[in-house]
Amino acid sequence: MPEATRPLALTMGDPAGIGPEITAGAWRALRHGGEPFAVIGDAQIIHQHDVPVREIETIAQAAGVFDRAVPVLPVTLDIPPRPGQPDSRNAGAITASIARAVELARTGQAAGVVTCPISKIVLKKAGFAYPGHTEYLAALCNMPGHEVMMLACPELRVVPITIHVGLRRALDELDSTRIIAATRTTYAALRRDFGITTPRIAMAGLNPHAGEGGTMGTEEQTIIQPAIDALRADGMDVSGPWPPDTMFTPAARARYDVAMCMYHDQALIPLKTIDMTQGVNATLGLPIIRTSPDHGTAFDIAGRGMADPSSLVAALRMATRMAEHRNRP
Amino acid sequence: MPEATRPLALTMGDPAGIGPEITAGAWRALRHGGEPFAVIGDAQIIHQHDVPVREIETIAQAAGVFDRAVPVLPVTLDIPPRPGQPDSRNAGAITASIARAVELARTGQAAGVVTCPISKIVLKKAGFAYPGHTEYLAALCNMPGHEVMMLACPELRVVPITIHVGLRRALDELDSTRIIAATRTTYAALRRDFGITTPRIAMAGLNPHAGEGGTMGTEEQTIIQPAIDALRADGMDVSGPWPPDTMFTPAARARYDVAMCMYHDQALIPLKTIDMTQGVNATLGLPIIRTSPDHGTAFDIAGRGMADPSSLVAALRMATRMAEHRNRP
Repeated sequence: MPEATRPLALTMGDPAGIGPEITAGAWRALRHGGEPFAVIGDAQIIHQHDVPVREIETIAQAAGVFDRAVPVLPVTLDIPPRPGQPDSRNAGAITASIARAVELARTGQAAGVVTCPISKIVLKKAGFAYPGHTEYLAALCNMPGHEVMMLACPELRVVPITIHVGLRRALDELDSTRIIAATRTTYAALRRDFGITTPRIAMAGLNPHAGEGGTMGTEEQTIIQPAIDALRADGMDVSGPWPPDTMFTPAARARYDVAMCMYHDQALIPLKTIDMTQGVNATLGLPIIRTSPDHGTAFDIAGRGMADPSSLVAALRMATRMAEHRNRP
Repeated sequence: MPEATRPLALTMGDPAGIGPEITAGAWRALRHGGEPFAVIGDAQIIHQHDVPVREIETIAQAAGVFDRAVPVLPVTLDIPPRPGQPDSRNAGAITASIARAVELARTGQAAGVVTCPISKIVLKKAGFAYPGHTEYLAALCNMPGHEVMMLACPELRVVPITIHVGLRRALDELDSTRIIAATRTTYAALRRDFGITTPRIAMAGLNPHAGEGGTMGTEEQTIIQPAIDALRADGMDVSGPWPPDTMFTPAARARYDVAMCMYHDQALIPLKTIDMTQGVNATLGLPIIRTSPDHGTAFDIAGRGMADPSSLVAALRMATRMAEHRNRP
């Protein structure tokens, strides 16, 4: 089926967060000729944001509806959500929305999955056993540990190789094997899903000035360079290890397609310094396409009409482009 | 003496680097009504960049000369420099230039010191015992250990609390005492030298999401928060600890005057992501004013007419503004 008519499955996220509001905003931005999606969730919470909604029975009906109303594949909430006041009793509906979206993508009915933000704390109270969205998606795809998180804005793509652990533990966890695995997954995804035939990969150093010849840390020599050597031996275009502070200047970032980063903030600081509103989180390494906006539930502003749908719109557009590349003959 | 006529002392830096070229460029940019300076160094290496030079005997003569020629207080080189080919035999002249500039500033003859880049490797071969410029300046001022490095561009000021050590060692060195001392020095300098009456200080966290309540690292609770509490008890406006990735967005950085950062790249990545060309390095905590461009000797492009004097121009301007604030009655 051409991507123009095969819709994306958009999860509702936490119904007490800004998900419903940015979903309504994204539909307004995309309804005329944009990327069609179906919400997997509660119709009423979307309708409250002054947009027409239409419950559908199969996701194939979404494209025919999309220019007139937000298509919704219903998932029933346990209690009516109140903006800004999350309730763990809706955890089952939130995770059911994600599981159904993944199933639709795995069976090829949806072009991919785009997720609205969830709160780990809310879900954890209800027994959710995963560190976050990404790990849950990997488990649903029966590929735990294969997931790689990439964050992208128009000017920069970054992959943090260690992610949601304290900085000291990140240093302990970092090794050549992890760097090689994440880079291989990233390389394959850039080729398959982003249409970049020969991806240019910039590998960050870990220490100031990339260690300056071992005088300020030795991980560049003991861990990072051996990984680069192994990846080059596979035929990949990998440069580095680069001094972390100068590799994100406008001139430097024009020279690569992705920066492989050693820890969370090395990747996230430059991305968010450049562009908070257009950031997209993409999960690489899974059989399905998945993107999400690069922000959280924002319970503090939920229900006030202040939420900016730009990041969700960018996530929907990126997922569609990825699906087009993947399915190109 | 009014700052309009009291010149800055500009060190020559490594004569084989881009120092002479950016000095000539800065003079062209500033000669008509800009900030006057005298070069402490070799006249010939400046003259080679197609600008008139005038050797002077005392720095007080610089202002009268400045619109017609680059004033130079001579320091004799041991061998003629070749661009891009540094020679440790000139190390003595390079350090003499710095020592003389500091002396001129300490005695009040110069408004402050601005330094052109040096190469630690070149000086080390000749027995230079300091990790870098900043530590040497602190020693010349008889205040070793009091120096604090601040990097600034028009949109952002940052202070790295640990600096030129490997990341693992930075984690070991970080403690509340260091954070408190660096923040006090920074606070005093922002008031005295930058004219900010009540500086707003943003304290960075160390870990992803500032530790997220201790689930991703505990240094925010054990080291950073106690330091913030102590600084607030002194009456300072200190916010944080902030998640490092979201504190440098355009909206966030409008809310503070300086970001106190836990390690080198946490400070340097956002600054250089924003602006490579206008960055200035200022040394706080010393009796003299000192700034420098935020780049190195760039031996690879020295002598080719490619060097951009913007950062040096910004450093000269910042030093003059700092001197004006400090000497305001």
